[in-house]
Amino acid sequence: MAAMRMVDIIAAKRDGRALTTAEIDWVVKGYAAGEIPDYQMAALAMAIVLRGMDDRETADLTMAMARSGDMLDLHDIAPLTVDKHSTGGVGDKTTLVLAPLVAAVGLPVTKMSGRGLGFSGGTIDKLESIPGFRTNLSAEEFRRAVRELGLVVAAQSGDLAPADKKLYALRDVTATVESIPLIAASVMSKKLAAGADCIVLDVKYGQGAFMRTLDDARRLAQTMVAIGRHAGRKVAAVLSSMQQPLGFAVGNALEVREAVAALRGTGPDDLVELCLVLGSELVQMAGVRSDADAARTMLVEALRSGAAWAKFRAMVVNQGGDPAVLDEPERLPTAPVQVELPAPRAGFVAAIDGQALGLAVNALGGGRSRKEDTIDHAVGLVLWAKVGTRVAAGDPLLTIHAARQSDVEAVADQLRTAYTIHDAPPPPLPLVEAIIR
Amino acid sequence: MAAMRMVDIIAAKRDGRALTTAEIDWVVKGYAAGEIPDYQMAALAMAIVLRGMDDRETADLTMAMARSGDMLDLHDIAPLTVDKHSTGGVGDKTTLVLAPLVAAVGLPVTKMSGRGLGFSGGTIDKLESIPGFRTNLSAEEFRRAVRELGLVVAAQSGDLAPADKKLYALRDVTATVESIPLIAASVMSKKLAAGADCIVLDVKYGQGAFMRTLDDARRLAQTMVAIGRHAGRKVAAVLSSMQQPLGFAVGNALEVREAVAALRGTGPDDLVELCLVLGSELVQMAGVRSDADAARTMLVEALRSGAAWAKFRAMVVNQGGDPAVLDEPERLPTAPVQVELPAPRAGFVAAIDGQALGLAVNALGGGRSRKEDTIDHAVGLVLWAKVGTRVAAGDPLLTIHAARQSDVEAVADQLRTAYTIHDAPPPPLPLVEAIIR
Repeated sequence: MAAMRMVDIIAAKRDGRALTTAEIDWVVKGYAAGEIPDYQMAALAMAIVLRGMDDRETADLTMAMARSGDMLDLHDIAPLTVDKHSTGGVGDKTTLVLAPLVAAVGLPVTKMSGRGLGFSGGTIDKLESIPGFRTNLSAEEFRRAVRELGLVVAAQSGDLAPADKKLYALRDVTATVESIPLIAASVMSKKLAAGADCIVLDVKYGQGAFMRTLDDARRLAQTMVAIGRHAGRKVAAVLSSMQQPLGFAVGNALEVREAVAALRGTGPDDLVELCLVLGSELVQMAGVRSDADAARTMLVEALRSGAAWAKFRAMVVNQGGDPAVLDEPERLPTAPVQVELPAPRAGFVAAIDGQALGLAVNALGGGRSRKEDTIDHAVGLVLWAKVGTRVAAGDPLLTIHAARQSDVEAVADQLRTAYTIHDAPPPPLPLVEAIIR
Repeated sequence: MAAMRMVDIIAAKRDGRALTTAEIDWVVKGYAAGEIPDYQMAALAMAIVLRGMDDRETADLTMAMARSGDMLDLHDIAPLTVDKHSTGGVGDKTTLVLAPLVAAVGLPVTKMSGRGLGFSGGTIDKLESIPGFRTNLSAEEFRRAVRELGLVVAAQSGDLAPADKKLYALRDVTATVESIPLIAASVMSKKLAAGADCIVLDVKYGQGAFMRTLDDARRLAQTMVAIGRHAGRKVAAVLSSMQQPLGFAVGNALEVREAVAALRGTGPDDLVELCLVLGSELVQMAGVRSDADAARTMLVEALRSGAAWAKFRAMVVNQGGDPAVLDEPERLPTAPVQVELPAPRAGFVAAIDGQALGLAVNALGGGRSRKEDTIDHAVGLVLWAKVGTRVAAGDPLLTIHAARQSDVEAVADQLRTAYTIHDAPPPPLPLVEAIIR
């Protein structure tokens, strides 16, 4: 075979040609090895953004990036493991509930999570609001947790998909993030490298989510499911609305409290419902139950019986957390200043801008604008009114949990404009729009 | 004004928005200063290739690149100067004839030329086949030649459009050359920086030219003329066919001989005709004659009278060349091996692949594949049969001028396949397709 030249590969994609498996492999290897310079990769990334990639190319890119580092294999410990990924949203504490829930029905959960950046939070930050909880586990600790407990949620360790990491950093500064094939390959390369056999994807759309429209979310979901099929994994994607935050709490310790409530049977309906839908997909993919109704019944029982709650508690103990704060959640980090934000007028809440809420939590110190920022786990928001709620003028819309009074004043205005209040009630918001298998 | 961010500008072009004058200026300044990295510029260049730029953006880019270095101003020497640019082709010795021709009718010609690279030659290489001829002139020598002779053809000196130079090198390795706005801005930024008031562009199309189709050539010509108008210069563009080489000679010294013949009244018709068309545009733009017929008559007289030839001779003397070789062109560098290539069959020449001829001259040592290659001025090709010529089997198609017999054998096959011979005569080829003013 003649030697490949990056300039020819860029030109091919520029002209709308599908790249071959060998070309994609050569590009990813060369880029990861530092032999292909950033300027050539940036030109190729822009050509991909504007010309697209078909499912086969996207799967090839995903596999090449997955193979660029460690490929976890846990089959010596468990014949089958499950994993979950969310495209990210404001107030998204789904993992905290879903992981122990499916572990409680016997599916080993091996989940690596990220920290928050920008307006959306990260599961690792949320778990670290539990005093003592360790998320940086060694490979041996990770494997032992899977073996002994069948449940682990940890920060990414090892060298998973380093080509994706390098490419993502380049895309971030070259305006080449917005591409469904590139987003799908980035997410799935890490998931495939992390080794789970069954993966459920929570693809969110709407204000406060990365995919703004249902159409884009559907295309992303279809692309990721196709990649999974190509790679011999079972993958299902749930399209869920992010037209407003999930549940009522936004902020690390506040979200842990809400997740604990959900696991103890008093959680918000939308959060519990989404976890049952996602969990039901995992139960079916794992072959434990063969239809959605039976899978759901199994999960509802695990919640009702306290098995899910016991699994969460066991995970906290196993990873060094103080279980006493779970029994008395008021011992979680608590903000000294708590101020209610009143509704400026009477009417029905028609929309809540999740991105604005996420940015306000950042401004309160609960999130990061840059990777190196430290965060205050106690601060955040608790919503009283969600879309469809009828409020009188002066009724509380939400409570601001802040470190100091001046922080409250700094975010109050932007929070007020995050709420849209109309005279007439809005049409009901769907929670789950579709499931792509 | 808020600080600009390159990632926002890339995103704007990616999404098809026209960039503002201020944005384009900021990008060019930042890139030239090394503040914007190559990877961001590469992403922007690809977005421009695929999304395009309108005439205003293209003019802004051109002006910004022109202003990135020296801007020549010769108005203290001559109230009006003229310049010419060709998009490049095989066997294109137009400048050697056109420059002395228009200088002979009183238009000061200030022409900076390039060296050949790839399959097409460069005027500077051609002139350097004249023993002693100096093309690297100081700024003072350049100005004196304009003042005293009204004619200078030299290698680019000074720091003209350095932003273009840097961007062009990047485009070359990122598959972002093929963009009409970027090509037009690159050509015109150098022309505007070189300071001439009237510029005629020879935009070639067809096999052996950079623009393969007439449509692309027309769009490029229109774009460059629009840039000139925007910049307050007079610009006209002639669309000329490169379906076959111009004249009969391809190779440096061989082309000088052919140009000398044209200036002495025995040159090939197509070369002379193209020079009269291009020259006529300059004469009209300069206001010396008001219509094409009168301009042409003036130029024909300058050829017939020997004034153009005398001007060329004076330029050679002025730049240190040996005028004796002009009077006896057989004293120009001459290849030791000259072999005729016979026609493999009888018929009419239907097409000649100029690019294949150019590559053959490179292989003979007469051109460069890389910038640092040295060249043999003596080698090249002299065509006997051009498109439309009837040949018998065994009639010579061309003579190969080579340094050694083995070189002849190395190129003979590719030269034979460069000729297409059919039974029926081909339709006549147009020389000049259109003039864009």
